[in-house]
Amino acid sequence: MSLTGFGEFSLIRKIKEKVGDSGLLIGIGDDTAAALPTPGMALLATADLLAEGVHFDLSWHLPKILGRKSLAVNLSDIAAMGGIPRHALLSLALPKDVSTEFVDSFIEGFLEIAAEHGVTLAGGDTSASKGGLFINVTMLGEQFPELVVRRSGAKAGDLIFMSGTAGDSALGLRLLRGGSRDGSAVKCHTDPVPRLLLGRILAERRLATAMIDVSDGIASDLGHILEQSKVGGILNLAHIPRSVEFKKIISVDSDGYNLLPLTGGEDYELLFTVAPENQDKIAPLAVESGVDLTCVGIITAGSGLVLASDDGSSCISNCRGYDHFK
Amino acid sequence: MSLTGFGEFSLIRKIKEKVGDSGLLIGIGDDTAAALPTPGMALLATADLLAEGVHFDLSWHLPKILGRKSLAVNLSDIAAMGGIPRHALLSLALPKDVSTEFVDSFIEGFLEIAAEHGVTLAGGDTSASKGGLFINVTMLGEQFPELVVRRSGAKAGDLIFMSGTAGDSALGLRLLRGGSRDGSAVKCHTDPVPRLLLGRILAERRLATAMIDVSDGIASDLGHILEQSKVGGILNLAHIPRSVEFKKIISVDSDGYNLLPLTGGEDYELLFTVAPENQDKIAPLAVESGVDLTCVGIITAGSGLVLASDDGSSCISNCRGYDHFK
Repeated sequence: MSLTGFGEFSLIRKIKEKVGDSGLLIGIGDDTAAALPTPGMALLATADLLAEGVHFDLSWHLPKILGRKSLAVNLSDIAAMGGIPRHALLSLALPKDVSTEFVDSFIEGFLEIAAEHGVTLAGGDTSASKGGLFINVTMLGEQFPELVVRRSGAKAGDLIFMSGTAGDSALGLRLLRGGSRDGSAVKCHTDPVPRLLLGRILAERRLATAMIDVSDGIASDLGHILEQSKVGGILNLAHIPRSVEFKKIISVDSDGYNLLPLTGGEDYELLFTVAPENQDKIAPLAVESGVDLTCVGIITAGSGLVLASDDGSSCISNCRGYDHFK
Repeated sequence: MSLTGFGEFSLIRKIKEKVGDSGLLIGIGDDTAAALPTPGMALLATADLLAEGVHFDLSWHLPKILGRKSLAVNLSDIAAMGGIPRHALLSLALPKDVSTEFVDSFIEGFLEIAAEHGVTLAGGDTSASKGGLFINVTMLGEQFPELVVRRSGAKAGDLIFMSGTAGDSALGLRLLRGGSRDGSAVKCHTDPVPRLLLGRILAERRLATAMIDVSDGIASDLGHILEQSKVGGILNLAHIPRSVEFKKIISVDSDGYNLLPLTGGEDYELLFTVAPENQDKIAPLAVESGVDLTCVGIITAGSGLVLASDDGSSCISNCRGYDHFK
């Protein structure tokens, strides 16, 4: 059945039923949602917009997985602050020919990952669209203000760590465009895992001096930390963690071996800096947080990002992240 | 200059500069914004999505006025809860050929109305769009939980009031489609005024038992109050306040005389119910809040909305609000 037959109010009612008891003061169905903040905590708020043909392609992005991803990319921002995710608002602009089955699967995926992280769907908006599917998710979270990890706290001498592996999402996108529909790199692109537990541990034990999630590629995202912390950095290219699948497909001699991790983006891993006296506390966190952690470089005085190779050569990075308008 | 030449990061930097000191713990430029809630207050959250060709037509909606409206419709939801608006997140999906002048004017209008209501732009997202302009605004507000006005508190015997006039926005849309570009009805449609002061007074003096903003037409929006309050209601059609321009253009004998206010929507006036012992306290609020207030009906036991005419005839309303998918 298409939404034209089903109707906007029925869709909202259906979503409300699926959400069930939200635990909110006021949930879906009033002019606004209302929630009671945790006393003493700061409110964290972020929004991510996903546009058809720009962020996803419906010919390979299954609706349920797209529902998961649309929340995951926001959860990743909360993780990068060391925050605890609480409530989400979902806005959907839907082409008139989209089926109710599509929307049902999308919502199923969205609510599935929400439940995995204790997030309630508090509200949002629905609209028709004359130009493809648009999804905006606003994610609200909390953390005590003194524990929130900014991009601006890195100091010269801090070590640069990252979680998981880099470049898989960009590789996955390349594989999808070539016709592949499975494998771990494809999954990294379509169904990324937000590193909430890791982010929270790093914040609550005050181990990260600065943190960001890798959404635009390591070079660009590390660049944000350097710029906002007013420091420089050296990234050891050979130390960037690459997955087994990545190394099997992308030869160490090819351009993509560095380019995909540095500029590919959408890995949604955490990139963070750690004071040297705390570096020994990071390795044990891999087991606790369930994700590998690798030291990839060091913060320096000065400014700018230096990309260092194993053979001793180095160059200044002029990598920029993905610009939607280019 | 087009955004393709200007770039996404430059746009975000430019917006950040225009916002200036946000008063937030963390403003634009980190993974999330962070704000300190007012102790004891509940967080209010709402989102509205505006899609080109569905909610607005760029051939008559000037970018600055569109910027104002995109925040105004969200402010109206905060007003309907009796809340105090605080922070907004703005997501923009922009066609690649949109000019920087367009975006500048849009942001100017957005920040202008934000400043009028003490709202800070805390974050958001930008993206390219392959299918027209899409705008999502998430609005965060606050109010003490015991003062928040829901849709569900109306009781039999309560009087139904509304602010301002009804049907002007729908009339304005009709005039715009016919080629008009000015006049008060056109302005009501393109640049609605959120009734924040009125909403807050009604909440803080505990005068409104239920409240909603008129976004889908009186019949549909009053229907939400009746449904959620589990009561019925009688709406006196002749008492619905209509503007001078409305009465000049729409003859009292024409279908539009009732149809535009009942089903037109987008008036963004407040529709609220008041216990009979408090009815005398409403008229003086018109001066205080700067908007006319009119009693348009009464809440009854039972269910459903009855539309009553001056000649004594009445009928059951089967009006529904505007459904984007129909």
